[in-house]
Amino acid sequence: MSSKAFFRLTLLASLFVISQAAEIDYNAAPPNISTLENGTLFHTWRPKAHVLPPSGHVGDPTGHYVDPATGLFHVGYLYTTTANETVPGGGASATTDDFVTYKDISSPDPRFIKPGGINDPIAVFDGTVIAPGYQGKPTFIYTAVSFLPISWTVPYVPGSEAQAIAVSEDGSGQNFTKLERGPVIASAPFGLNVTGWRDPFSFQDSGFDKLLQSKEDSWYLVVSGGEHDVGPAQFLYRQYDSDFMQWEYLGRLWRETVNTTWGDGTWAGRWGFNFEVSNVFRIGAEGADPDGTLFSLVGTEGGKYGVQGGRAQLWAAGDLNPPTNETVSFDVTMAGILDWGASAYAAAGKLVPSSAKASQASGAPDRFIAWLWLTGDFYNSIAFPTKAQGWDSTLLTPRELYVETISNVVDNNAVRETGSWRITNESSTSGTVDIVTLGHKPVREAISAYKSKASNTFTEPDRTLNGNNSTVIPFSQAVPQSKHYVLSASISFPSEARDSPDLRAGFQILSSEQESTTIYYQFSNESFVVDRSNSTAVAQTTEGIDTRNEAGKFRLWDIKDSTGSAKMETLDLQIIVDNSIVEVFANNRFSLSTAVL
Amino acid sequence: MSSKAFFRLTLLASLFVISQAAEIDYNAAPPNISTLENGTLFHTWRPKAHVLPPSGHVGDPTGHYVDPATGLFHVGYLYTTTANETVPGGGASATTDDFVTYKDISSPDPRFIKPGGINDPIAVFDGTVIAPGYQGKPTFIYTAVSFLPISWTVPYVPGSEAQAIAVSEDGSGQNFTKLERGPVIASAPFGLNVTGWRDPFSFQDSGFDKLLQSKEDSWYLVVSGGEHDVGPAQFLYRQYDSDFMQWEYLGRLWRETVNTTWGDGTWAGRWGFNFEVSNVFRIGAEGADPDGTLFSLVGTEGGKYGVQGGRAQLWAAGDLNPPTNETVSFDVTMAGILDWGASAYAAAGKLVPSSAKASQASGAPDRFIAWLWLTGDFYNSIAFPTKAQGWDSTLLTPRELYVETISNVVDNNAVRETGSWRITNESSTSGTVDIVTLGHKPVREAISAYKSKASNTFTEPDRTLNGNNSTVIPFSQAVPQSKHYVLSASISFPSEARDSPDLRAGFQILSSEQESTTIYYQFSNESFVVDRSNSTAVAQTTEGIDTRNEAGKFRLWDIKDSTGSAKMETLDLQIIVDNSIVEVFANNRFSLSTAVL
Repeated sequence: MSSKAFFRLTLLASLFVISQAAEIDYNAAPPNISTLENGTLFHTWRPKAHVLPPSGHVGDPTGHYVDPATGLFHVGYLYTTTANETVPGGGASATTDDFVTYKDISSPDPRFIKPGGINDPIAVFDGTVIAPGYQGKPTFIYTAVSFLPISWTVPYVPGSEAQAIAVSEDGSGQNFTKLERGPVIASAPFGLNVTGWRDPFSFQDSGFDKLLQSKEDSWYLVVSGGEHDVGPAQFLYRQYDSDFMQWEYLGRLWRETVNTTWGDGTWAGRWGFNFEVSNVFRIGAEGADPDGTLFSLVGTEGGKYGVQGGRAQLWAAGDLNPPTNETVSFDVTMAGILDWGASAYAAAGKLVPSSAKASQASGAPDRFIAWLWLTGDFYNSIAFPTKAQGWDSTLLTPRELYVETISNVVDNNAVRETGSWRITNESSTSGTVDIVTLGHKPVREAISAYKSKASNTFTEPDRTLNGNNSTVIPFSQAVPQSKHYVLSASISFPSEARDSPDLRAGFQILSSEQESTTIYYQFSNESFVVDRSNSTAVAQTTEGIDTRNEAGKFRLWDIKDSTGSAKMETLDLQIIVDNSIVEVFANNRFSLSTAVL
Repeated sequence: MSSKAFFRLTLLASLFVISQAAEIDYNAAPPNISTLENGTLFHTWRPKAHVLPPSGHVGDPTGHYVDPATGLFHVGYLYTTTANETVPGGGASATTDDFVTYKDISSPDPRFIKPGGINDPIAVFDGTVIAPGYQGKPTFIYTAVSFLPISWTVPYVPGSEAQAIAVSEDGSGQNFTKLERGPVIASAPFGLNVTGWRDPFSFQDSGFDKLLQSKEDSWYLVVSGGEHDVGPAQFLYRQYDSDFMQWEYLGRLWRETVNTTWGDGTWAGRWGFNFEVSNVFRIGAEGADPDGTLFSLVGTEGGKYGVQGGRAQLWAAGDLNPPTNETVSFDVTMAGILDWGASAYAAAGKLVPSSAKASQASGAPDRFIAWLWLTGDFYNSIAFPTKAQGWDSTLLTPRELYVETISNVVDNNAVRETGSWRITNESSTSGTVDIVTLGHKPVREAISAYKSKASNTFTEPDRTLNGNNSTVIPFSQAVPQSKHYVLSASISFPSEARDSPDLRAGFQILSSEQESTTIYYQFSNESFVVDRSNSTAVAQTTEGIDTRNEAGKFRLWDIKDSTGSAKMETLDLQIIVDNSIVEVFANNRFSLSTAVL
């Protein structure tokens, strides 16, 4: 472990070691690992502080809920027991009472639903849990798949997707039994040549109730998709009966023109051709807030921007406007990327009330907590050698979402861009504005536990560095060779840094004589970069090891203090390293997650 | 064979023997036939001049069409290869170029579609063929079944029925290949608690086009069903794309209030609780006529009237009125029963153009020809011993439908009833009216062939009988013991007959020393009766032999001639006896079909 910094900056760093490295000898140069026996490398890159199943392939996080009876949070995900399968083998889940430790819902097979029924002969895709739902029991409304392939890039096969229903009869969530009936929504809206129509997300919202003249506390579903040649969209449905069996189609809640961008695309990628895994929720300064700002999470497909490989995990805030063309409309006021990692996608969030067991212990208020998926084979597009590993992909550390306010920002061109923030207050006197953006940070219980339960804690003394572009400065003390830790650091830059296009500041992690990964921020294009080019020697012997750089856009604001002098805000970094899983968080409004072998 | 007549009447009778009886010795008293080996009685009651499969169970006639390429008529039916199965095992068909002889579409298994696909895992129900349809090929749009039971008497399972599509890829009609896609109509109209939603029927109609502002020659579908506690209905859909893949729901074309009747119910039974097998077509005096009167055939379920066992095969004529509540509406002007046989049901008709091969030969104009099903086990409600027989049920002789006009009918209370006729002209001068009703008679080619190819033809001399109520008068000449013949007779009654409630006139058929069946008309309640109480000795040894009387309402009109004197019209009878299958036709406007063992 070394710290690599360049230029004059102030660094405050702490390191919390989650776990010691396993005792395996990796001194020899690696072979082509695709030739290794099943499971040989099972533990080599496997994270310890992330949610993933015993083995096999993890897909989208889906079907989370807090059981009102137990207060347990159920984290769900699509699960294919055999790694490298492309069709999800059902949904699995684990429960937690603290967001730190998780228990598979059943063992050895944690699946709560499997495909192969009359409605879902081919696959079970993402769903949403209403708890209490049908007969007061946890109820899973999910996309039941009858035909494949399904992709916005090919003609849509009508009937390939339907929204079906299953119920946890005993309330435990161990098994969601499919009701002996057809789908609750049998087909995509009539007359639309859809690009996709899946991933229902359920929510209640008094703002919707009011504008739609719905019964109080009505449930809604948004189904994600789009229309060929027209653009991506969210399809809105309203509960029609108390049993959740019928859902009335209201129209498209959110429509974007095909493959366009928010602003010039810099801050939020492209809307692409098809939406997936939409979430709809309201948050305020503290977390979930029924009177807060309306947000949506959305996975966009087909956007050609940047490194997202055609997919991007976006967020957007918007106004809910009265019905005009089809139904109420979500009109975007700001949008951004939830996680800039090219493999981080399919964010699925859930309202976690303060009554949840974990929240009771931590004192957290009502929260909206989102889970992302980190695909291990770049959406099945690269031949990652899963055989030797026996698993691929993971869920990322869950994040709390809230509205982050940054006050007294110097009002300049940078602030006035159409970006992932919105001006809420302007003071012409002081020449400043207040801006808001999506705040997101690792779930508090996890970070708190990592710190309090760390096997070692190191705090580097503050230092001021006057480096040049190539200097790597080690930490002042020896650190253990753990690959499981949290690194927190604050870096203060002088304002001249903006005029130094070559300035890079960051850390080298997971370094050895042969390998190292560099995480740095550079002012030239206001970006974070994770340089994986030298991360693993395995890439030299084996196909399918992704060593491309990861990059994400991040801006440090100039803040005026009470004296009227402006100063660039501190870069507050939090890097979670859990073996091969690396999550970079900055200033509660940026994240970039990736795998580093 | 004997003729049984009572009272003074004039009789003109001819007998055309279709076929000689098979050489089997049936002199011994019958055993309990349910104990007999498989197939022992295969030929005993099997018809020779009706359409039924090689063995097994026939259900609804369905999926007929004239192949534009060959001119052949394809007669289809639901077929379960094993007798007594309740779930249809698919659709089968035979072709004909003359409506006399038929060839199974393939042998030994004549099915053109089987259930078990993704859309129809459980069963294939009735459908409709559009030819030319998708890509110009014969295209079958049918009810695909995913859940059972389906009945108006139990809560509807949403998704149990969907309308799916299959295409005869090679154009031959031997196999209809299910397209790799979901149903073309995935679910019943939103928000309706339907009693049923099946049996699509396709048609084109310029009257619909005009009122609905549709593209010229649009295709429509009616799907049959109803709404719980509201009433039976026909759901109307319109073609949306040239490939027949999307059908726009327009609303209910025909709605009746639950379990009500046309008039007092005397002439048309009850509308019941659910419609099945709807047909929509226009006919005139000669047959099919795009400018003719709009008719519908409909099977009604749950009506408690009469002997129909809860089901009735009705017809109705109506006006097509502009959209008001939901869509254009079919407003009934007269209604009746197409066949009064309690086991005759599920009429499925098809437009047969004059270009059809059979029509070319016979010189017939465009026709609408309907096929009925005669269930052999009373809709699976009686334990008919099918094992020994190896088959059950048959299709009946196809009928030509047209508008029958009866002119110069004495205008009296009888005419003014709300009945299965409608007054079209009134003359106060002569005190007469013209009335119209549904004309229906056995398809001309079949009757013509039975007559021209008869192995024996007998014509009894005209006679005038002054019988009493118990006299049975044999034919004047010996007739062969054939059980396959057509009997035509005209009986003239004096007007006093109306005042003789005990008057019965008719025939005894299939008679021997032990058995006989009496078919008679009685003036007391203007009814035909088929008395089966002494039809078969098997009923004394075996359960499940239906010996109940069959009855149907029929009125003979008083007609004024040019001199102004009124005379009751002649009763023109045509009785088709094909072993156990007996079809009674009267005056081109009445039929009653039944099985006589």
